[in-house]
Amino acid sequence: MKPLNELTAGEAATAIADSAISSESLTRACLERIEAREAEVGAWEFLDPDLALEQAKRRDAGALRGPLHGLPFGVKDIIDTYDMPTAYGSPIYQGHRPSRDASCVAMIRTMGAIIMGKTVTTEFAFFQPGKTRNPRNPAHTPGGSSSGSAAAVADCMIPLAYGTQTGGSVIRPASYCGVVGYKSSRDSFDLSRIKPLAFTLDTLGTFSRCVEDACLVRAALLDAPAHPHALDGPPRIGLCRTYEWDQAEPVMQQAVEDAATALRDAGATVVEIDLPAPFARAVEAHRTVMTFDAARALPFEWARHSTRLSQHIYDLIADGLAMVHADYEAAIGVRDDCRRHWYDLMHEYDAMLMPSAAGEAPAGLETTGDPLFNRMTTLLGVPCVSLPGHAGPTGLPLGVQAVGAMGGDDKLLSVAAWMQSRIV
Amino acid sequence: MKPLNELTAGEAATAIADSAISSESLTRACLERIEAREAEVGAWEFLDPDLALEQAKRRDAGALRGPLHGLPFGVKDIIDTYDMPTAYGSPIYQGHRPSRDASCVAMIRTMGAIIMGKTVTTEFAFFQPGKTRNPRNPAHTPGGSSSGSAAAVADCMIPLAYGTQTGGSVIRPASYCGVVGYKSSRDSFDLSRIKPLAFTLDTLGTFSRCVEDACLVRAALLDAPAHPHALDGPPRIGLCRTYEWDQAEPVMQQAVEDAATALRDAGATVVEIDLPAPFARAVEAHRTVMTFDAARALPFEWARHSTRLSQHIYDLIADGLAMVHADYEAAIGVRDDCRRHWYDLMHEYDAMLMPSAAGEAPAGLETTGDPLFNRMTTLLGVPCVSLPGHAGPTGLPLGVQAVGAMGGDDKLLSVAAWMQSRIV
Repeated sequence: MKPLNELTAGEAATAIADSAISSESLTRACLERIEAREAEVGAWEFLDPDLALEQAKRRDAGALRGPLHGLPFGVKDIIDTYDMPTAYGSPIYQGHRPSRDASCVAMIRTMGAIIMGKTVTTEFAFFQPGKTRNPRNPAHTPGGSSSGSAAAVADCMIPLAYGTQTGGSVIRPASYCGVVGYKSSRDSFDLSRIKPLAFTLDTLGTFSRCVEDACLVRAALLDAPAHPHALDGPPRIGLCRTYEWDQAEPVMQQAVEDAATALRDAGATVVEIDLPAPFARAVEAHRTVMTFDAARALPFEWARHSTRLSQHIYDLIADGLAMVHADYEAAIGVRDDCRRHWYDLMHEYDAMLMPSAAGEAPAGLETTGDPLFNRMTTLLGVPCVSLPGHAGPTGLPLGVQAVGAMGGDDKLLSVAAWMQSRIV
Repeated sequence: MKPLNELTAGEAATAIADSAISSESLTRACLERIEAREAEVGAWEFLDPDLALEQAKRRDAGALRGPLHGLPFGVKDIIDTYDMPTAYGSPIYQGHRPSRDASCVAMIRTMGAIIMGKTVTTEFAFFQPGKTRNPRNPAHTPGGSSSGSAAAVADCMIPLAYGTQTGGSVIRPASYCGVVGYKSSRDSFDLSRIKPLAFTLDTLGTFSRCVEDACLVRAALLDAPAHPHALDGPPRIGLCRTYEWDQAEPVMQQAVEDAATALRDAGATVVEIDLPAPFARAVEAHRTVMTFDAARALPFEWARHSTRLSQHIYDLIADGLAMVHADYEAAIGVRDDCRRHWYDLMHEYDAMLMPSAAGEAPAGLETTGDPLFNRMTTLLGVPCVSLPGHAGPTGLPLGVQAVGAMGGDDKLLSVAAWMQSRIV
């Protein structure tokens, strides 16, 4: 048997349900891994081993609660927890202790999860990096903004973690760290007490080491199917280079092409897609919407704590406040056009295949990389799954993403589960 | 000149900008009205006259901040304020003091508003009534859940107030109290730190004594046009009886028919609309979605404070947790079908005309009335404006609502501004 900390969430849940292992032994194995590796990786903003072990012992002593029973779960520090501090990656909120859990945290507690600790986020889930390093190579960024969650799952410190995506904050770090990232459809999950960055774009997501584990989280939150369903036959995949294809590094272009070939070889129908004209404006529309919304998400910090904002966030809010409503409306118009086209396209295809990021994780920790290949899908609000398996010239991972129809998360996860072993 | 507390927000804002009146004198006039009437109306959960006057004096001493400069604004007590307690209508949160403002509160402060106090909400914006009485007749309910906001604006205690709508919590109390209610499109406004009831349905709204004043709030929050635009010509109105028409009281049916006649007389094209078949299932789909979502919005209270929930809320959460995901998905499917039909319909019409509520405000304070005529529009997520002007047999107000296209709030408010003086 693998070391306990290397079990997937599904494997661990089954072993706990069968009393083959205890939640306490699993949690201890994860804590030992963290102890050994945290100095190098820096995934955690807050971790109290005693608090984690106490939850695990309660789970072992109690009845089976649900699909996440006994599983250590990392929570991005942009999400409120009543029993752990929540700082949103900002000095303004150092030591801040929320009065209650975010809905998504309270729900997974109800379903048996162990809240392991709080993982590092960039400041307010935007671009100012935290301390986290890429566990595959500590000289490189893990990506952001869900830096700690991606790194902790990639490094087998925990089997599951929450991230959020407003630009590319789940799919990009998943690609950089070599794990599965799932970004949900807009309106899938209650986002209350998740610090907003842009209220029309923010989405909850997960990191795990296989696609199946994301289904467990959906089962806990929504009573959705706990396992991917078997497909009726090989899927129809759209090879969607997007209007940004030329800005992907050649190694990423190659990874997507190779994945397409492998899927064809496995029996899938893979068809090249040319996106309609409005999609050429989607990246810019995303920038506009994000900037405008951010100024409306952070007015309290702007009014009362502006001197403690990074230049990144300060400029974002200032730009958003200076923006004219008509420009915002125009960007929303682009979004709505693209959504209608996407709705039609997704009648023809089971998933779209595209790059998860422009390339490998950049060297250095000064930047968390570019969300260029996530802006369009985040603007659309559609579900995305980043699948690892490829690698670039320096040996760092490259993810490719499968993208689904609005609200079609369960179907997309089933298609992605079919794809994951076949794309490499 | 009218008493200051009877000025509309637009009149007061102009008078303040022209230095014809001070924010302090306006605030004092409103406080005097509250002093005289609060024992009978019971609109306020929290009010500190000194805190309100202090804000007003700061506004008078400072530069003009924005479209709401110096205006007393009521905030439903479901919305967080950093300087006033926020109890969400629940004993669980008596005395609770949030660490920061909701985004929608911080934004209007930035734009010059005076936060007058917190208005009474039902428990967690659902059905358990608060203390508020209908200012038109204290033996009747003001409606809910935004009970205090609707009553305070109707009684000229304040010119403007926030409400929220998940079922019928803005449009119904606006109808019962005889004021203008504006419920925004889904995704119009940042809802963070507004206590969620159902995350796919919750929307922010306003109460005012004329349509124009709702535009001022949109201008403050979104830099949207501060005034309705002049129409190119008389609008095309759909007379939309909905599948629930037979459940409207005859006086409400008459009010809608009379409004249609008056609009025709004023030059509008009014066409009877038969909604497509999926709309017959919209009310039930709304109930399903609201119940399922509510269980995901209140898991923390369910897990830790279940004995302090009313039977209404307890049953709602229990029902939501017992619900099967496939039933939720089916309801979401109805919603999406209806949205596509509505999108097509709204290419033909500038607004739909329908009842705001089933009839007059019911007698007694044990119930806040029935949101039957709001469930379909809230499920759709489209903007609604309730217009007063009619009255029932006991003299209580009857509102009719104009409903717009998703995201078409500015257009709808312009059409509603045209309608408001012509429907009676």
